[in-house]
Amino acid sequence: MDTTLSNNHIKTIRSLSSKKFRDSLGLFVVEGEKMVAEALASDFQVVEVWKRDEIGYDVMARISQLSSPSPVMAVVKAKPLSAPAETGGLCLALDGIRDPGNFGTIIRLADWFGVDVIYASPDCVELYNPKTVQATMGAIFRKKVIYCDIPALCRQFRKAGLKVYGTFLDGEDIYAQPLSKEGLIVMGSESRGISPEVAKEVDGKLLIPSFSGGAPTAESLNVAVATAVTLSEFRRR
Amino acid sequence: MDTTLSNNHIKTIRSLSSKKFRDSLGLFVVEGEKMVAEALASDFQVVEVWKRDEIGYDVMARISQLSSPSPVMAVVKAKPLSAPAETGGLCLALDGIRDPGNFGTIIRLADWFGVDVIYASPDCVELYNPKTVQATMGAIFRKKVIYCDIPALCRQFRKAGLKVYGTFLDGEDIYAQPLSKEGLIVMGSESRGISPEVAKEVDGKLLIPSFSGGAPTAESLNVAVATAVTLSEFRRR
Repeated sequence: MDTTLSNNHIKTIRSLSSKKFRDSLGLFVVEGEKMVAEALASDFQVVEVWKRDEIGYDVMARISQLSSPSPVMAVVKAKPLSAPAETGGLCLALDGIRDPGNFGTIIRLADWFGVDVIYASPDCVELYNPKTVQATMGAIFRKKVIYCDIPALCRQFRKAGLKVYGTFLDGEDIYAQPLSKEGLIVMGSESRGISPEVAKEVDGKLLIPSFSGGAPTAESLNVAVATAVTLSEFRRR
Repeated sequence: MDTTLSNNHIKTIRSLSSKKFRDSLGLFVVEGEKMVAEALASDFQVVEVWKRDEIGYDVMARISQLSSPSPVMAVVKAKPLSAPAETGGLCLALDGIRDPGNFGTIIRLADWFGVDVIYASPDCVELYNPKTVQATMGAIFRKKVIYCDIPALCRQFRKAGLKVYGTFLDGEDIYAQPLSKEGLIVMGSESRGISPEVAKEVDGKLLIPSFSGGAPTAESLNVAVATAVTLSEFRRR
């Protein structure tokens, strides 16, 4: 295995920290032993693997996107993120999730709770953003993520006789509502919640109630945390 | 109100990005309109408030710890973080939580789910770390956080006849276990889980089961997400 990188090669890998170059090259980067092992075991095409012990600490520090360069990095071929929506099973729709940490954490927990497909609105953060990728802890290699128009997706689920759920501050207590085994669960953005265009397509408005006993409390939950509570409630029944 | 800051004053505020100076000055910083409003409404002592419109964008950019300087910042007096442990109610114990985002998110959701006190092991990240403070979304001004020895705390709860719970990969299905209204819930670190010294004090070992249907899945949940699922399950009953 070749263990030297030309300056041009280093420059190319470094360029993958920017969306522009990820898009034009169709590649993204994963770091860490666990992540690289999961990439290799998946059906993603791993283009190259670089080990710190072989290329040296200084070169790894130049190509790594982490503050302390990891022992191993892989350059992976991106998969297309648009595909016809599939209707069925229990799916998530993310409406305007901008924070890569939240987006990646949601993919990780969707994997844990057996969600079939994760749909994302076009204004969500990019799946192959390095912070998203790392926050998935490998779930990115197992879960299907499709960017699409969320209001149209909601209509497609309802047309198929499936329910569309969402969490709202004026929804009905999630712990006391009937929840179906299949359907679409919409989660809204960190700052604005579910957008009005999507909200009007939701027919199951849910609320995660606060238990502060009437004392002043946080106005909302972090979106990854709210997704976890919601999926837990759908799955435990 | 004085709207000019001397260079020395700017230097002092900037120094609060470092734990060393937060400790020696006993001060910390909060940013954003919501956070500053919550600080002012709380029983924390707000030492000074600086508005971007008054001091100018450039000065705010120098004292802000955010990538885009917020419209308002407050310097707040820290409260002592050691106190005798109180036994009773439903409490959280955090064992080695290192990530400030996770720590702050857990305080925010403890607020939502009406947790009485949050105990933290001495090796947890510092409460007044700016990333922790911002992730609490204001809950830091409402919740009591006490740093203490967690094994001793567990023994104190058990001596008082209260149960000590924790999540483990070999625990019992949380959805099928009896959960008491009072007690202590231990959450372990991001990388190592609950430490062995603490684990032997836990008498209610819980598991959040995966619903991946036997397919390979994430090995674990993010600790903030696991805390959310656990608290939701304790509170809904």
